[in-house]
Amino acid sequence: MGVIPESNVDVLIVGAGPAGLMMATWMAKCGINARIVDKRGTKIFNGQADGLQCRTLEILDSLGFGHRAWREANHMLEICLWNPDENGIIKRSDRIPDTIPGISRFQQVVLHQGRIERFFLDSIAEASDIRVERGVMPSSLKIDESLVEDDAAHPITVTLRHLTEEEATPKQSSTSANGQSIQDGLFRSNLAKDDTQDLLDASKINAKANSEEVIHAKYMIGADGAHSWTRNQIGLKLEGDSTDYIWGVLDIVPITDFPDIRMRCAIHSADNGSIMVIPRENRLVRLYIQLNTTQKAGDISGRADRSKINPQMILESAQRILAPYKITYRKLDWWTAYQIGQRVGTSFSVHERVFLAGDAVHTHSPKAGQGMNVSMQDSFNLGWKIASVVKGHAQRSILKTYQSERRRIAQDLIAFDHKFSRLFSGRPAKDVMDAEGISMEEFKAAFEKGNMFASGIAVNYGASAIVAKEGSSEEQGDGTDVSVAIAKHRVISDQSLCGGITVGMRIPSHKVLSQADARPWHLHEVLPSNGRWRVVVFAGNTNDNRQRDKLWKLSEAFSAPNSFLDLYTPKGARYDEVFEVLLVHNAPRKSVTVFDFPEVFRPYDEVDGWDYNKIFVDDVSYHEGFGNIYEALGIPQNGCIVIIRPDQYVSYVGSMEKTAAVNSLFAGFMKEQYVPDEAHRRMVALSENNQSFSV
Amino acid sequence: MGVIPESNVDVLIVGAGPAGLMMATWMAKCGINARIVDKRGTKIFNGQADGLQCRTLEILDSLGFGHRAWREANHMLEICLWNPDENGIIKRSDRIPDTIPGISRFQQVVLHQGRIERFFLDSIAEASDIRVERGVMPSSLKIDESLVEDDAAHPITVTLRHLTEEEATPKQSSTSANGQSIQDGLFRSNLAKDDTQDLLDASKINAKANSEEVIHAKYMIGADGAHSWTRNQIGLKLEGDSTDYIWGVLDIVPITDFPDIRMRCAIHSADNGSIMVIPRENRLVRLYIQLNTTQKAGDISGRADRSKINPQMILESAQRILAPYKITYRKLDWWTAYQIGQRVGTSFSVHERVFLAGDAVHTHSPKAGQGMNVSMQDSFNLGWKIASVVKGHAQRSILKTYQSERRRIAQDLIAFDHKFSRLFSGRPAKDVMDAEGISMEEFKAAFEKGNMFASGIAVNYGASAIVAKEGSSEEQGDGTDVSVAIAKHRVISDQSLCGGITVGMRIPSHKVLSQADARPWHLHEVLPSNGRWRVVVFAGNTNDNRQRDKLWKLSEAFSAPNSFLDLYTPKGARYDEVFEVLLVHNAPRKSVTVFDFPEVFRPYDEVDGWDYNKIFVDDVSYHEGFGNIYEALGIPQNGCIVIIRPDQYVSYVGSMEKTAAVNSLFAGFMKEQYVPDEAHRRMVALSENNQSFSV
Repeated sequence: MGVIPESNVDVLIVGAGPAGLMMATWMAKCGINARIVDKRGTKIFNGQADGLQCRTLEILDSLGFGHRAWREANHMLEICLWNPDENGIIKRSDRIPDTIPGISRFQQVVLHQGRIERFFLDSIAEASDIRVERGVMPSSLKIDESLVEDDAAHPITVTLRHLTEEEATPKQSSTSANGQSIQDGLFRSNLAKDDTQDLLDASKINAKANSEEVIHAKYMIGADGAHSWTRNQIGLKLEGDSTDYIWGVLDIVPITDFPDIRMRCAIHSADNGSIMVIPRENRLVRLYIQLNTTQKAGDISGRADRSKINPQMILESAQRILAPYKITYRKLDWWTAYQIGQRVGTSFSVHERVFLAGDAVHTHSPKAGQGMNVSMQDSFNLGWKIASVVKGHAQRSILKTYQSERRRIAQDLIAFDHKFSRLFSGRPAKDVMDAEGISMEEFKAAFEKGNMFASGIAVNYGASAIVAKEGSSEEQGDGTDVSVAIAKHRVISDQSLCGGITVGMRIPSHKVLSQADARPWHLHEVLPSNGRWRVVVFAGNTNDNRQRDKLWKLSEAFSAPNSFLDLYTPKGARYDEVFEVLLVHNAPRKSVTVFDFPEVFRPYDEVDGWDYNKIFVDDVSYHEGFGNIYEALGIPQNGCIVIIRPDQYVSYVGSMEKTAAVNSLFAGFMKEQYVPDEAHRRMVALSENNQSFSV
Repeated sequence: MGVIPESNVDVLIVGAGPAGLMMATWMAKCGINARIVDKRGTKIFNGQADGLQCRTLEILDSLGFGHRAWREANHMLEICLWNPDENGIIKRSDRIPDTIPGISRFQQVVLHQGRIERFFLDSIAEASDIRVERGVMPSSLKIDESLVEDDAAHPITVTLRHLTEEEATPKQSSTSANGQSIQDGLFRSNLAKDDTQDLLDASKINAKANSEEVIHAKYMIGADGAHSWTRNQIGLKLEGDSTDYIWGVLDIVPITDFPDIRMRCAIHSADNGSIMVIPRENRLVRLYIQLNTTQKAGDISGRADRSKINPQMILESAQRILAPYKITYRKLDWWTAYQIGQRVGTSFSVHERVFLAGDAVHTHSPKAGQGMNVSMQDSFNLGWKIASVVKGHAQRSILKTYQSERRRIAQDLIAFDHKFSRLFSGRPAKDVMDAEGISMEEFKAAFEKGNMFASGIAVNYGASAIVAKEGSSEEQGDGTDVSVAIAKHRVISDQSLCGGITVGMRIPSHKVLSQADARPWHLHEVLPSNGRWRVVVFAGNTNDNRQRDKLWKLSEAFSAPNSFLDLYTPKGARYDEVFEVLLVHNAPRKSVTVFDFPEVFRPYDEVDGWDYNKIFVDDVSYHEGFGNIYEALGIPQNGCIVIIRPDQYVSYVGSMEKTAAVNSLFAGFMKEQYVPDEAHRRMVALSENNQSFSV
């Protein structure tokens, strides 16, 4: 067989869907040595997931491409509820905003998964040399358990097989939520111009066809979907079950006199089932259509006979539900059918070395538009943690918070989906005496309540070494113990200090002005996802002597030997390699200049001069109004310190005087940095040179 | 010599700077057969122009890439005026907003010309097969005057020479405003990742090196800069003169304790001259520095001895002016020096066949940040006119309005620049008795007044066939006669109808909601630059019977045989090929649906169904406030018709009843469309097949 190439990599990602690409993006932004493989020969171009929550848009924006999604997407502004009237004819009974006003600077939009993947691919290519290796499948996985706690080790060994073009090019099909897939029609009318290159590149995969290679990885992420190969290899399971509701999905350019076809609609017919209307980009509309049970020729296992389901049959169901309005189409972009089921992984990792993310650990119904969002947010939560451990900034213990934080979210999602699916699939009650029917008032209430959950903004991570708050980490998470190992480093936030900031939630965003040039920025815009922790000092009005004195004392503490900045920033690294120290004051902007503030907020560089981008002020802008962030976040007159994780979730809130608490917090999970030891460096270099051997 | 290839093209563009690229973008968007050549081997990567006015950003946005400029640019929010205090030490005397609040949804920003060119190149490539042909120079130009009034003819014959790599790669140098250039330092630290491909492609130009070809063109645009070859060929001249003020320009990353270095500053020192500070992207700052006259070793011709000017000498001037503040640098990106001069072309075209645009017809000082803007706006004005004539939609007569509209703007610009330069180059007055000094109050007043002019928003085109307003077209333009040829087609707007709309100016933009999906759009966003005229009907509250009746009557007139829609839309073309008919009503959004309005506002297509994107409502949005466009534009209760040119300038305002005036207006310059004549088509095809001949 000759020589099988063998190599080391810090992070191996299996699967280049949204969850895998999010992970690769973190690796690219943080400069981590990573590879990402996918068994398919190309990215997807239509169908699949399409909903983007507010929080997902905030995240994409922090990665530098939220605006691309925002521009291309269809914006859904309003939900129209249609129900049977007293004669059983559907009519619009209510309108509610699709996104609760004020919760985010973005609103829920719709754009198909293939475009999101395009944005990730472009962003990865811009920031790094990482490229998705397509037509590549893992064929074996071994973990050396004796090495899992050794920071420098590569305990994971994976054999990769390069597929032939035939193997890597399945007809693109729907992967329904619970893993039952049906071939689709595949009309590529929607193919975007910047995707064309990908189709051309697909032919390149043949060069290595049928060859194998061996990879030794420090960390591995299985983002390989509902049928996860990685999950099976490490012996983890999904728990839950499926119902017997069957739904069809049509992506069409509708020809209809239904007046709300460009709104998101929840339509309950009297006797013919329900439709969810999701207006999409490029004139498309997605219809989720409940298939009449009489058409459900079930087999013995309780599963539907899917050979009987086709677009015409789904359309006819839609026509019955929408009557007396007419609907048909000439353009069909994609279609599928699925049975609703809800399952969640028993565990999200083994040894905090191999992790699962996305559909590999949770499946549910697609109608609430959660799947792609929760999947991307899984690896958004995990990526910066792995990067900081690989770089030697943080201790391995923070990796346990992935399961604690994300498995809890998956459990909440499954509960939400269960309730929502039942209400949506049920027959509307004819009147208050109709106990078997679903009350439309109850449905509307559930919808409105679900909107907060569905926005992604409500996520509130439990207490842990990296979320300094009261309470039990087991109870607030999924049961995993993620408390601080050394009791003296346990820090508790003063949660009452700022009414608008909740420790464990993402910090809300409002506009602030740059002191140096008066430019308005949304707070989130100055917190891009690059792996840095932010220590934000809200210093109040620094023209007040008391506040100014506190600020200078705080700056002395931050700049002192053995402060967190000193201990945990690698020697010789840029001043903001690990921590960015930001100031938001509310003295009148015109009364001060950047030179009135301590140098820790405007670090000096021999070549670039002073850094003018770290001091902000809560004041009126010329063209974009007044952010009023002090009032919006409830910042007290005497200021506070807010510590924000690299993923924008709040880690800690405390008063300006408590600089010792800041040091303690980071001592709980960061690693002290020493002057590099030449002998050790040489040893590492030697072991990494060991690149291939014969078999 | 063998065969010289010969071919026909509709439009030949010489010069791929901002003016030439703007023209090529129009051609790409309108589907016109065009070529664009440039003698340089690559686009530029640093230095040159950098200011973008509000109006320019609106225009770039209408072309689909304003957001790219907006994101990458440095935003200038405030102008700080620094003047000598009673002891002759500079201090900040005033702050004014850089852009007048409320005049546009964009504000003035700074981004170097090379990036703007990148956005144009990407946009052209996305919309068409047009590519800039680099290393190509015209060597002869002939016009067959007997053919200039023949719509179908190609009266222009140009020989192009393909240069060698050496010829096409001059050291990149500054082109100062009045054409005197000095070699620069060229530090490419600013090279953006997406520009790299261009440098690689530059090597391709060698393949055709030293070959020639002959092109027959219908129209030609000389956008070939201050030394315009095209201008010389057609015998046109620039008129005006230059002063003896000399200015140096440094693009540096400053190391300074001057507190306003990230603001736009106008600094007058007591005795050492003036500085303009322009903060730019990537930590760069551009300094315009007045060079002390003692350093101006003039030669006999009155020109400065430029060999004595270098970055160190310019920096030292800056240090004297800025004292007691310190300034130095370690990174120099670009530098130049120039003498101020103001010149404008005697004519902007010959026979309305060969046109000049940009620096080829106006040069002036760069400090007001006007050059690149006015240049792009020249060809933005011209492009759609040529496209509509080439397509056979409009009569050739509209081409005369280019000179009438743009030469007048150039004249205004030169007058503005003359006044502004004098005030900025002069020594500040020591007191009210110091008659030779410049009053700083006068300077501030000029600055504030100049801001409206400099925004580009104040442009107000004079009466013509395409601007239906009172008065003499000669007096309102540059003297060219551009009145309507047939008197019965002269239409005069009712200018008093809408207080917020001025015929001849660009329509202001405010938010409206799409009726079909409640999405807020800025009005400008629904007026993209694609060559279409817009007939916007502000119908008022259509729940009012009177307004509804008027709307249905208007729709009947628009849909009638021999209406403008019928006469001037090519047979068989899409319903909005030439005119887009839009509706903005102000009935409550929730009280109506799109199906309550006439079909002319929601045209039906057999494949795509109804068009939902042409009906808008002035109502409150869920997340982006209330545009209140009726109040902002002063639309009366009983509505009005507003006709908007393809470049967003208002052509006509009239009452809803005056549908005959709409027909008359278009009769004045549009061409009636007939069923295509097969015989004529074959003749044209034959003449275009005549591709090459031996010499």
